[in-house]
Amino acid sequence: MNPLLEADGAALPARVKIVEVGPRDGLQAEAAHVPTPVKIELVDRLAAAGFANIEAASFVSPKWVPQMADGADVMASVTRRDGMIYSALTPNMRGLEAAQAARVDEVVIFGAASESFSQRNINCSIAESIERFRPVAAAAKAAGLRLRGSVSCAFGCPFEGEVPVQAVQDVVRRMLDLGCDEVDVADTIGVGTARQVAGVFDALATVTPLSRLSGHFHDTYGQALANILAALQSGVSIFHASVAGLGGCPYAPGATGNVATEDVLYLMEGLGIVTGIDLDAVIDTGDFISRAIGRPNGSRVGRARLARRASGGARS
Amino acid sequence: MNPLLEADGAALPARVKIVEVGPRDGLQAEAAHVPTPVKIELVDRLAAAGFANIEAASFVSPKWVPQMADGADVMASVTRRDGMIYSALTPNMRGLEAAQAARVDEVVIFGAASESFSQRNINCSIAESIERFRPVAAAAKAAGLRLRGSVSCAFGCPFEGEVPVQAVQDVVRRMLDLGCDEVDVADTIGVGTARQVAGVFDALATVTPLSRLSGHFHDTYGQALANILAALQSGVSIFHASVAGLGGCPYAPGATGNVATEDVLYLMEGLGIVTGIDLDAVIDTGDFISRAIGRPNGSRVGRARLARRASGGARS
Repeated sequence: MNPLLEADGAALPARVKIVEVGPRDGLQAEAAHVPTPVKIELVDRLAAAGFANIEAASFVSPKWVPQMADGADVMASVTRRDGMIYSALTPNMRGLEAAQAARVDEVVIFGAASESFSQRNINCSIAESIERFRPVAAAAKAAGLRLRGSVSCAFGCPFEGEVPVQAVQDVVRRMLDLGCDEVDVADTIGVGTARQVAGVFDALATVTPLSRLSGHFHDTYGQALANILAALQSGVSIFHASVAGLGGCPYAPGATGNVATEDVLYLMEGLGIVTGIDLDAVIDTGDFISRAIGRPNGSRVGRARLARRASGGARS
Repeated sequence: MNPLLEADGAALPARVKIVEVGPRDGLQAEAAHVPTPVKIELVDRLAAAGFANIEAASFVSPKWVPQMADGADVMASVTRRDGMIYSALTPNMRGLEAAQAARVDEVVIFGAASESFSQRNINCSIAESIERFRPVAAAAKAAGLRLRGSVSCAFGCPFEGEVPVQAVQDVVRRMLDLGCDEVDVADTIGVGTARQVAGVFDALATVTPLSRLSGHFHDTYGQALANILAALQSGVSIFHASVAGLGGCPYAPGATGNVATEDVLYLMEGLGIVTGIDLDAVIDTGDFISRAIGRPNGSRVGRARLARRASGGARS
C-alpha cells in the first residue's frame, strides 16, 4: 500500500498551520515601492481569509531594506483579531523596540546553517549571529512576545553547496536554546529534493518535537510542493507560503520563488488536511496584490482558477 | 521514520523510464507552425540526451491538427538509434498505415475515463472508442509494433469533476485487453493531488502490474511533482514529461501545462533514481526549443540553471 494511504504510523498531520509570509518576505523582494495602504489591505485580506499567523513587517534599517521602512505604519493600521499572530523581523535591539512599539505579536531572529551564507548575508559567523541575537531573544521573551528563529540554507547553500544535516541540527538547537518557540527550516535557494527533506526533518526530530519546526520552501527548482509532501510525511505541520508567490518573480529566470500559498492550500485540501483558510479568498487576494503591484500572478492555482472564472468555463 | 527513507517495502523504484512527449503532445499546442527542421533537431537532441522513448509524431488528419502534418517528414529524418522507441498517435487505420510507412516503433491509441470528455474530445462514448481502436490495435500488434494506450481525465474531468476510480480501472482494463503493452494514466487538466494519485495507482495495481502503467501529469495547479512523488510511492516507474514544459504556455493563465522534463529529472536525481538521461543536455535542449519557437522556458530548473550559467554565479 502506498504509505500516503496508511491510516496509522505514516499518516499525515490532520491539521497544519500555514504562515503567510507574502507581506514581508514576499514584498521585500519587490524593487518598486509598494504603497503602505496596499500593504495594509493585503494583510487585512489575508487575515480575513483565515490565516492565524502573518509575517507583516520587518524592523530592519531602512537603509538596508527601504521597502520595509513603513512597518510601523502598516502595523498601526491593520485590523487586530483575537488569536492572530503578526510577526516581524527584528535584527537587533532597536528593531525589537520598534516591533514592541508597533504591538507585534511575534518577533523573528535569523541565522544560517552555512558559514559562508552567514558571513555574506549578515556579515558574521553562525556562532556570532547567535550571540548577537541573545539579548534580543531575552528581551523579547521577557516582554512576553512569541519568538521565532529562521534558519536559512538548511538544504543547500549557494556558496558551499550541500549543507551537512549536523549543521542544521546544531543551529536549530541553538535557536531553541535562545528561547525560540518555533524555528523555520528554510530552503533559501530552493535546491532541496524530497528524500533530502525527509532526512533533514527526521534528523531534526531527534533534536525537538517537530511541532516546533516549520518548513519554508522555495520553488526555484519546482520542488516546493513535493518537498512539502515529503515534510508532511515526516510529521511537519507548519509551513510558510507566500500569496501569489510574492518574493521573486516566477517569470524571471532564476528568481527566488517563495512557494505560492494558493498551491499549498490546494495540495492540503486534496490531502484532506485542515488549514482553516479559505482558498477562494486567498486566490482573490493574490489577484488583488498582483494587479496592485503590476506583477504576474505567481500561483498556478491562482492563474488556473482566475482563468476559469474569466471564461465562465466548467474546468475545475 | 519518513517512509521515503525506508529501504524495504515502501522504497521507491531504483530506475524509472521518462517518456519525452514534448515533440508531439507539447508542440501540438503551439499555435504558430514549428518548422520541420526544428522538430527534427528537437527529437535528435532529446535522443542524444539519453531518452529511450520519445513521442515524436501524430498521424491524425492535418485538418484537425495542422501542426502535426509533417510527421512523416520528421520521422524520415530523425537519427535512428538501437533500442530507441519513437511513438506516434494513430487515431485510425489510415493513421496506423502512415505510422508504419514512417517506421514508427510504437503507436498510441487514446481514450478517456470520463464519458463527457470522450464525447467532446473524440465524439463517441468510451465503449465506442474502444471498438473503433480494436482493428487499429490488432493491426499494430500483427505488424509487430509496440502499442500504447492513453487514458485521459483519470484524475478529474472538466465537465464531470471527479472521476470514479472504477471508471479508470475499467478503461485501463479495456486498453490492456486490446493488447496495449503500456497504458498512460493521465491527469489531463492537472487537478489531481497526491493522496488521490496514490489511491488511483494502488487501485490500478489490482488490475495490472504497475510496470505496464505510466503517470502523465500536468502542472496546471502546480501539483505535478508532488503527484509524481506520490505515484513513485505506489511503485509507478514510467512517467511522461515535456522538455521546457512544452504544451501550454506556463505564463498564460489556465494553460494546460505538461510537467517540465527538467524538473522531473531534478527530482529523480535528488531521489537517487536512475533515468539514464543527461539533465544538462535536456536543459540545453529546452533552451534551444524555447528560443527556436520564441516561447518562455517553462521549466523552473531550466530557468534557474540557465540564469546561473549566464551570471557565472555559484548558485547550485
